[in-house]
Amino acid sequence: MARSLGRLFKGFQSPAFPKAMGAELCPATCVSVRTPFVRTILALPSAFSSKPQDFSLPNSSWGPEMLRLYNHYKSQCEVEVEGEEKQEGPWQRLPSYNRSLKFTPGGVYLSKTIQSKARLFTRNITDPGAAFEYVLFVNKEKQKCVGIFQTGHLLEGPPGHVHGGAIATMIDTVTGSHATVLSGPVMTANLNINYRSPIQLGHTVLIESSLDKMESRKTFISCKVTGTDGSKLYTEATALFLSISVSHLLGG
Amino acid sequence: MARSLGRLFKGFQSPAFPKAMGAELCPATCVSVRTPFVRTILALPSAFSSKPQDFSLPNSSWGPEMLRLYNHYKSQCEVEVEGEEKQEGPWQRLPSYNRSLKFTPGGVYLSKTIQSKARLFTRNITDPGAAFEYVLFVNKEKQKCVGIFQTGHLLEGPPGHVHGGAIATMIDTVTGSHATVLSGPVMTANLNINYRSPIQLGHTVLIESSLDKMESRKTFISCKVTGTDGSKLYTEATALFLSISVSHLLGG
Repeated sequence: MARSLGRLFKGFQSPAFPKAMGAELCPATCVSVRTPFVRTILALPSAFSSKPQDFSLPNSSWGPEMLRLYNHYKSQCEVEVEGEEKQEGPWQRLPSYNRSLKFTPGGVYLSKTIQSKARLFTRNITDPGAAFEYVLFVNKEKQKCVGIFQTGHLLEGPPGHVHGGAIATMIDTVTGSHATVLSGPVMTANLNINYRSPIQLGHTVLIESSLDKMESRKTFISCKVTGTDGSKLYTEATALFLSISVSHLLGG
Repeated sequence: MARSLGRLFKGFQSPAFPKAMGAELCPATCVSVRTPFVRTILALPSAFSSKPQDFSLPNSSWGPEMLRLYNHYKSQCEVEVEGEEKQEGPWQRLPSYNRSLKFTPGGVYLSKTIQSKARLFTRNITDPGAAFEYVLFVNKEKQKCVGIFQTGHLLEGPPGHVHGGAIATMIDTVTGSHATVLSGPVMTANLNINYRSPIQLGHTVLIESSLDKMESRKTFISCKVTGTDGSKLYTEATALFLSISVSHLLGG
């Protein structure tokens, strides 16, 4: 696995690449690379840095509950200090784009057409509200991450309810982003998901992840999907991530 | 959970509903309801039985490896017996549609708009080859199921590779369909997934599930995602499903 990841990232030889490791450093010219195996924020060479759309900002499809929770956490991203300008608060919003890097080493199987058209799975439908509407906030001091997730009508599994694979996808997204903020570049080694109750389409849920422990290269995260007031448990999961060094990612 | 599922299926009171339980009985007027919690094949009342498209048949996006494997299993769905007409073979293809039932009991959260527009998560993008291209075959005698999965460019996680959530989605699809064929209506209770190696976009993989054991209401399935020749292991998983009685589904 290590070798295959090394090969995968051999193409990222831009001097800009290692500079912006860590979600907190991401400017508009970065692309969030969300992966099951490697998550990090990569600065792109200028040729690839056309301004991408940040999909984790409010749009017309967001319902009142989604907006209320967004404003709740957003208001804690900056705090007023008497007599001073606003300062960073305990929470921080993570941006989210629909493009990954376009210049990966492909091999024979990966045509140029596929590379240029590739889109992040969770952002592959751009119609607002149709699929995954979500925004992530992280609190580094409390070592917590929260995802606010509004479920679109194209995520159906049971009639009127969200597919288990879509729930797994959002759990992977929240816990993986959390692990990246805590440990830098990581890869997912395991997801263990217990489904307790179905989630309705058109509903808003909270996905809260917390750090269980860190041991050597391993980051253990647990996660709960609940109603927005926390009273109803829909799904719970544990996730294990393995840290990858930058030199390793670069094939060193 | 049982109660919520009972509520969920209260609306399915058509006399036609319980007749076609089991994938093997599905005619063209059925809709495949693939869910994380409840999987079964439901016959629709005539008002909803306009002929749906079966997405698990070959299309122009299928590459040579996808077609080769499809033909391999398809050829074993019917066998020639000397002096007689073709008979059912050991394997059977499972059809796949993009619509779930439209007339679920919704509650206040589920608007009519959302219900009428709802689409099965794995078939929500109809552009051939762009997202999930897959076909499932089941062998009841050997208690095995196989999914042939061609990975589209809209499933990206790591650059050029498939998102872990998309892999989880296909594992849920294959193991859940398998459990339904073996045990009738079931709900997913657990998915435990170990990611071993990333899967390239534009690649074809095999997802093979086998029955581990059945105990009372529990069906235990394990699953491997490998290269098409079986030599490379990409992902492995176990899944647990709970059987649900028809009367229970109907709120009895």
